[in-house]
Amino acid sequence: MERKLRYGMIGGGPGAFIGGVHRAAVRLNDEAELVAGCFSYIEEERQQAGRELNIDPERNYTTFEEMAEAEGKREDKIDWVDIVTPNRFHYPAAKLFLEQGISVVCEKPLCFTVEEGEDLKKTAKEHGCLFCVTYTYTGHVMARQARAMVQKGQIGDIRMVMAEYPQDWLLDSLETITEDNKPWRADPKLSGRGACVADLGTHIENWVNYVTGLKIDKLCCNLDVFGKGGVLDNNVEVMVKYKGGATGMYWTSQVAIGFDNALKIRIFGEKGTIEFVQEENNYLRVSMRHEPPKIYSRGCGYLEEEAKKYVRVPCGHPEGLTEAFANIYKDFCAALRDKLDGKEVDEASYGYPTIDMGIEGVEFSNKCVDSSEAGCTWVTMEK
Amino acid sequence: MERKLRYGMIGGGPGAFIGGVHRAAVRLNDEAELVAGCFSYIEEERQQAGRELNIDPERNYTTFEEMAEAEGKREDKIDWVDIVTPNRFHYPAAKLFLEQGISVVCEKPLCFTVEEGEDLKKTAKEHGCLFCVTYTYTGHVMARQARAMVQKGQIGDIRMVMAEYPQDWLLDSLETITEDNKPWRADPKLSGRGACVADLGTHIENWVNYVTGLKIDKLCCNLDVFGKGGVLDNNVEVMVKYKGGATGMYWTSQVAIGFDNALKIRIFGEKGTIEFVQEENNYLRVSMRHEPPKIYSRGCGYLEEEAKKYVRVPCGHPEGLTEAFANIYKDFCAALRDKLDGKEVDEASYGYPTIDMGIEGVEFSNKCVDSSEAGCTWVTMEK
Amino acid sequence: MERKLRYGMIGGGPGAFIGGVHRAAVRLNDEAELVAGCFSYIEEERQQAGRELNIDPERNYTTFEEMAEAEGKREDKIDWVDIVTPNRFHYPAAKLFLEQGISVVCEKPLCFTVEEGEDLKKTAKEHGCLFCVTYTYTGHVMARQARAMVQKGQIGDIRMVMAEYPQDWLLDSLETITEDNKPWRADPKLSGRGACVADLGTHIENWVNYVTGLKIDKLCCNLDVFGKGGVLDNNVEVMVKYKGGATGMYWTSQVAIGFDNALKIRIFGEKGTIEFVQEENNYLRVSMRHEPPKIYSRGCGYLEEEAKKYVRVPCGHPEGLTEAFANIYKDFCAALRDKLDGKEVDEASYGYPTIDMGIEGVEFSNKCVDSSEAGCTWVTMEK
Amino acid sequence: MERKLRYGMIGGGPGAFIGGVHRAAVRLNDEAELVAGCFSYIEEERQQAGRELNIDPERNYTTFEEMAEAEGKREDKIDWVDIVTPNRFHYPAAKLFLEQGISVVCEKPLCFTVEEGEDLKKTAKEHGCLFCVTYTYTGHVMARQARAMVQKGQIGDIRMVMAEYPQDWLLDSLETITEDNKPWRADPKLSGRGACVADLGTHIENWVNYVTGLKIDKLCCNLDVFGKGGVLDNNVEVMVKYKGGATGMYWTSQVAIGFDNALKIRIFGEKGTIEFVQEENNYLRVSMRHEPPKIYSRGCGYLEEEAKKYVRVPCGHPEGLTEAFANIYKDFCAALRDKLDGKEVDEASYGYPTIDMGIEGVEFSNKCVDSSEAGCTWVTMEK
Repeated sequence: MERKLRYGMIGGGPGAFIGGVHRAAVRLNDEAELVAGCFSYIEEERQQAGRELNIDPERNYTTFEEMAEAEGKREDKIDWVDIVTPNRFHYPAAKLFLEQGISVVCEKPLCFTVEEGEDLKKTAKEHGCLFCVTYTYTGHVMARQARAMVQKGQIGDIRMVMAEYPQDWLLDSLETITEDNKPWRADPKLSGRGACVADLGTHIENWVNYVTGLKIDKLCCNLDVFGKGGVLDNNVEVMVKYKGGATGMYWTSQVAIGFDNALKIRIFGEKGTIEFVQEENNYLRVSMRHEPPKIYSRGCGYLEEEAKKYVRVPCGHPEGLTEAFANIYKDFCAALRDKLDGKEVDEASYGYPTIDMGIEGVEFSNKCVDSSEAGCTWVTMEK
Repeated sequence: MERKLRYGMIGGGPGAFIGGVHRAAVRLNDEAELVAGCFSYIEEERQQAGRELNIDPERNYTTFEEMAEAEGKREDKIDWVDIVTPNRFHYPAAKLFLEQGISVVCEKPLCFTVEEGEDLKKTAKEHGCLFCVTYTYTGHVMARQARAMVQKGQIGDIRMVMAEYPQDWLLDSLETITEDNKPWRADPKLSGRGACVADLGTHIENWVNYVTGLKIDKLCCNLDVFGKGGVLDNNVEVMVKYKGGATGMYWTSQVAIGFDNALKIRIFGEKGTIEFVQEENNYLRVSMRHEPPKIYSRGCGYLEEEAKKYVRVPCGHPEGLTEAFANIYKDFCAALRDKLDGKEVDEASYGYPTIDMGIEGVEFSNKCVDSSEAGCTWVTMEK
Repeated sequence: MERKLRYGMIGGGPGAFIGGVHRAAVRLNDEAELVAGCFSYIEEERQQAGRELNIDPERNYTTFEEMAEAEGKREDKIDWVDIVTPNRFHYPAAKLFLEQGISVVCEKPLCFTVEEGEDLKKTAKEHGCLFCVTYTYTGHVMARQARAMVQKGQIGDIRMVMAEYPQDWLLDSLETITEDNKPWRADPKLSGRGACVADLGTHIENWVNYVTGLKIDKLCCNLDVFGKGGVLDNNVEVMVKYKGGATGMYWTSQVAIGFDNALKIRIFGEKGTIEFVQEENNYLRVSMRHEPPKIYSRGCGYLEEEAKKYVRVPCGHPEGLTEAFANIYKDFCAALRDKLDGKEVDEASYGYPTIDMGIEGVEFSNKCVDSSEAGCTWVTMEK
Repeated sequence: MERKLRYGMIGGGPGAFIGGVHRAAVRLNDEAELVAGCFSYIEEERQQAGRELNIDPERNYTTFEEMAEAEGKREDKIDWVDIVTPNRFHYPAAKLFLEQGISVVCEKPLCFTVEEGEDLKKTAKEHGCLFCVTYTYTGHVMARQARAMVQKGQIGDIRMVMAEYPQDWLLDSLETITEDNKPWRADPKLSGRGACVADLGTHIENWVNYVTGLKIDKLCCNLDVFGKGGVLDNNVEVMVKYKGGATGMYWTSQVAIGFDNALKIRIFGEKGTIEFVQEENNYLRVSMRHEPPKIYSRGCGYLEEEAKKYVRVPCGHPEGLTEAFANIYKDFCAALRDKLDGKEVDEASYGYPTIDMGIEGVEFSNKCVDSSEAGCTWVTMEK
């Protein structure tokens, strides 16, 4: 058997949500093992995490700077680092590891500015590193199915995209957040200029781009800040015009009562329509002109090969969030092994979301804030 | 028993869709009978309609001008006239009947301009006439339930409204319409400045207003014209800001493959959310903060009184489009009988959509066209 | 225009549910008018109904015996009588009208015994009368669609049928009914031997038979009587074996909390599956082997001609219970007009449920009671 | 950190479905590691599995007999063995490991006869071993939620249970299986007397029992064998009467076109109804008398503590099959650790399905075959 890949993690200490999902996804694939980390700035939590995760104390670092340097020097250094910290550390941490020749898997939003993103891209290239941005929802089998169908022209040229991503989990915080008591997500210094738009809006922007290849030309955005103490957006409405003439609407919210995590994206082509609902990720609703809508089910024989290869359990046996993450890691590890084998690696061809997608997300998020601050005027994407 | 009310109809000849639904709705209520009409400008069709509808040939008129004049003189004149013609005749026809003291039920869009609408309102008032605009979807029992719940504050102050109304029935016409061969709906002289926005967009605008009382302050609209021969919009995207601070997004389309008539409106309040889907009109999804979403079913004991009084058959026995129309006629006939009984009539209190709502729809539709023509800029509603 | 058909009604006075639906359905079609009736044994209610329904007082009869005799003598006698009384009057009333040469539309269950049913059939034949049993749910457009698809072999030979019809409307009565205070539905003398099985079970038995042509060979039934005062079944479980080898299960209940009127029938063939849910009567779920399930929508172009001809409003504009009834009346009136025109009438070819289906329902219901009383043993259908 | 638990696996070689799911579930929990196995009788597959799973070649055994003996002697012996072989090996393999003092996790059906099951239970007790039967669907968070709600009396005494489990994955095999070419599932010597009833029927029987505590008193079963070459049942219909008076119907099939893995169980109580659909395992539909049905969502704050403790990711982020398995392993490992710590272990209190449930499943399956073979007569459960 080939050796297992090795990875480290920044962030993801006790109580953090997304770090645990990353680790579970990697374990699901059984291709890599967690051997190093910098899980928390709180000493007690750092040690607790190390014990629970069975990390060699020597590789359980207190700062990511120290970790990057120490790992960079090891012969058995980590093959990649997972960055699952609050947003503000994404850029500096990624930069340091790349400079040590360590590939990066980073949570979205990638960073605060396009310039930072371009710098990371350049640094990765210079040091021969791979870079994956974990836009989770591209990892679902049915996202791959949608992408293959669009790429093969099955729904024809796209006319409209209607996308939404409502949640309601921040409702209570509207009443409890104050200037003096706010979580990092509500603090622009820690989170970036946008909150809901960066956290959820970028998922929409990315998924649409990932599946359809559409690039936004212009957008017009309204950011709402409901509640008393919040200083950042918690409800986002965007109209978009894509290059090539298609149009679309994006809505995302953290205060939409009755919605858990309801990412829903509908792509309307000249020949057909594809609908994806994240909470029902094992299905895709496909409507072809003049025909009754069909419910595609993950795992069935009629799927495209590009989707089939990610199927883990038969149709009717639900997969979920962890499998979506795991599929992205499967792609990333395939690229990594190819790189270790000395092959030329075209990251975009492996299926995982690339740093270019991360940069686009940052631009999207910032342009949305620009538009809203300028009175909901139309702004043009530059990239 | 009281005498049945009498009504006439302009339009609705052989092959027309909506005229037949109006007549079926009136029959369902069994409160009025059709005794006069001007069903078509094509002589053969006019006569065929008269025979099929059992109309006294003397009252089967060849022009609506003639009909208004003749009916105005009769002792047993019609109590109201139904106007279900192509849009361009709404205003002149309504005007003539009002001047004869005959109340009007008119399809939407009410007319082409706000000025026309104001003139009709003034004329109705001068001649003591009632005026109903048949925004169908306000007639559903669950629309009344939603309205009562909002009015009673059950979902609190409203934050956002998300509404959509996709259809796909014009898909084929995209390829067959040419400058020389176009239906009235694609001809601005016959249909008005907006097509999809007037036909479907006004339903959204009205339903939201009817149920929530929200008035639009500003809107930003993109009208798409897909296909070759069409000169009018068939896909409409609107961002709205309501007076008071709520915001919303409206989307409607006639080229959304896989959607029949999918009006869906979601109202998000500080305390709860209400969702109405026209194609599942017997249900309402209601989510209160921190509670699991509930599926309200038309006919059940827990409905508000304002809704219960429109229930015709027990829960689980579906009602549909015809009942929605019939409920509007039930309201209108109640007002009409009160008027005949000499009572003071406050039209807004009966439940049917009023001429004010018709005028708002015209303004909304025209402002959308203004916004789109000006490059999707924000325009302000004046009323 | 041809003259309108004339009909009378037995039962259906103030407060009754189903009589009003029958009348609304007939009005929807606009082919016939109600001219006579015997609406209630309570004098006050009888007069009230006559006034409200605008019946000539001379034809508002106090007993159905009197009505049958008087109508039989009139030149302008009713073309048919609607029987919507409690079950026990179905047989004697139908018999009297048939003997006067008046055709009959009768609610289900047709009567108490197969012998009564056979007698009605013989009497109808002798007097040249038509006979329709209003198994409502055969009237839905999508029931016709399902029937056409099965008859054309689209789903192949049938293997299994899974059918259910839960309601919960009798829940409260479980606690309020006593020996001294019970409605007619709970009294075997007025309702017949079976309650839930006769009221709901026969709908399943009929729908399956109507759509598939399958005849039950043997059945094994358990009748539950929940609650204190009830003496008749309110929950019914049946296993069936059809002639030809298919098998099935039927469940119906009046105490299934959370279910309004949830008739759901699934037919599994060697090539495909068809699913009908009454509460979503505008759709049919169709699954063909190796293909994703499809959602057929009433009104779309791909429907079979046998279904299309009953479509009243375009797809996405819901039809419901009233239209289902109206479609049955449309069939029945077509047969009646043919008979009045002197044509040979093969009732089964018009689409409405025939007296044979009524008799089968009575046998089914009684065999279910037989089986349950004998300790849930298998009993054989004789017809 | 505590040492990781160690386990081995019998079966689950290349191409096998369920073994991989077990391993993924254990990895998800990160509490144990796979250190030994006997993955296949085919030498090449055995070695391939060992390499892929990184098993010490010394502990990659060629027979389970050898494995039981060798592991039994090791100081670092496995804490438990996973048995995921064809059914016929369940009993002999489990027996051998128990005799070596090694606890067992065994796929369902547990074994072929009640006697075998009782023998395993006795053997486990004698050697101080734990025994878990992996009825997967008890592991879902919402199964635990349903169980807690029923146990707390929230839906009152149970009146009926309606359960079904249709699949269609054996359709093609109906045409390809012959006497000379049949998979182990179609061979009674390898699979046991029942096929569909043992594979799927036992899931229903167990889930109902697990959640409600209801015990079957009597059952009446029809087994259908569709297709040409099959000698075992592929469609199962059962009527059941529970001790205490509730009744129910179970249906399961492997030839129901359009259904993937559609386990659906509905429990009707005097106060409310709970519905669980495996393919939508993150939700529960709960209907309380006189109230609109509610959709409970896994992860929300209103869940019972007994369910909450199994939640891994927030509501709206789907969990699926792997998490269900992992929850069972979480329970089992908790019990194992307690045992290793010398605590008294009451297996039923940990939440995983016990050997008693396995034995009940065997009896259920065999009684169904008995009933069907005797002409679908009622048979009585003995335990």
